[in-house]
Amino acid sequence: MDERLKKQMEFVLEIDKEKNIFRQTHLSGHGRNENDAEHAWHMAIMAYLLKEYANEKVDIARVMIMCLIHDIVEIDAGDTYAYDSAGLATQKAREDAAKERIFSILPEDQKKELTALFDEFEENETSEARFAHAMDNLQPLTLNNSNDGGDWREHNVTSEQVYGRQKKTKLGSEKLYELTDEILKEHIKKGNIRE
Amino acid sequence: MDERLKKQMEFVLEIDKEKNIFRQTHLSGHGRNENDAEHAWHMAIMAYLLKEYANEKVDIARVMIMCLIHDIVEIDAGDTYAYDSAGLATQKAREDAAKERIFSILPEDQKKELTALFDEFEENETSEARFAHAMDNLQPLTLNNSNDGGDWREHNVTSEQVYGRQKKTKLGSEKLYELTDEILKEHIKKGNIRE
Repeated sequence: MDERLKKQMEFVLEIDKEKNIFRQTHLSGHGRNENDAEHAWHMAIMAYLLKEYANEKVDIARVMIMCLIHDIVEIDAGDTYAYDSAGLATQKAREDAAKERIFSILPEDQKKELTALFDEFEENETSEARFAHAMDNLQPLTLNNSNDGGDWREHNVTSEQVYGRQKKTKLGSEKLYELTDEILKEHIKKGNIRE
Repeated sequence: MDERLKKQMEFVLEIDKEKNIFRQTHLSGHGRNENDAEHAWHMAIMAYLLKEYANEKVDIARVMIMCLIHDIVEIDAGDTYAYDSAGLATQKAREDAAKERIFSILPEDQKKELTALFDEFEENETSEARFAHAMDNLQPLTLNNSNDGGDWREHNVTSEQVYGRQKKTKLGSEKLYELTDEILKEHIKKGNIRE
């Protein structure tokens, strides 16, 4: 096996570990916690199916690969819950170190390419990154909604926290933000999200 | 929520069930069984990273979405192990019924689009379908190789069976077939695959 392919296959094996990084979100049907690989798979299909609702035209291949790789750094850095303020304070440093280690397994050109895609997602300035972020929000919201808001209740989440996070959905898709708003209002009314 | 978006979101929730369909393959590090969503996620990233080895030029967005959806029918039909001949005999009928039920949740145009992509993968005639099939083979092979061929040993798999299946990899990528052949020869030598 030549050196380039060897590095690529080493990376392929490394990212298998993402299947062991569990999130706070639960699968539908009041299932177990979801892992990062499942979350990313779901987001990428959603991006493909819902692309007509992106605020701006998107290159769907770029959105999909961004969705698929956006949590790879959590192999080292772990999952940081969206409403965990202590975790959020150290998240960037932990994820930067992970990004350097993990993408460095790849050949240099692909290290650059994937790092750039990862950074683009994080910076959230392009139409593709913004639409991918809308998926990153809408995917767990869909599961949590199907489970009667159990994840919000478990973490005592407030409407201020949820709306703070969901602002990013509006940047990616006005239409999907409307849907989000409708769902959130219902859960506030039911008391699943604190006022 | 309008009717179209409602159908799309219903489909999004339905496919969550794919995370509960477990395969015979084990995660690296002698881990638990892998599920279909994880397998599809892994294949789609591999397709993106290894596209330079496709025998023919591929539209990578089409390859990725094909990888992501190719096992959705297993929500109803279950996973059929590659070397389970009894299961393979009824696989097509079970998967056809599942395809009709599950894709019918979508708006008509997207039902047609996803059914066509699913059928294209199954028919394995286009460059995208062939490269996606190469990923469908190479992904579990990579995990099984990392686990000292445990999945082959567990199922008493023969070299004839493995090479029969891996022929499809050659159609999608000569280069990745060379790698496959190298790995298989090693496991035959070690006795993990029966002669």
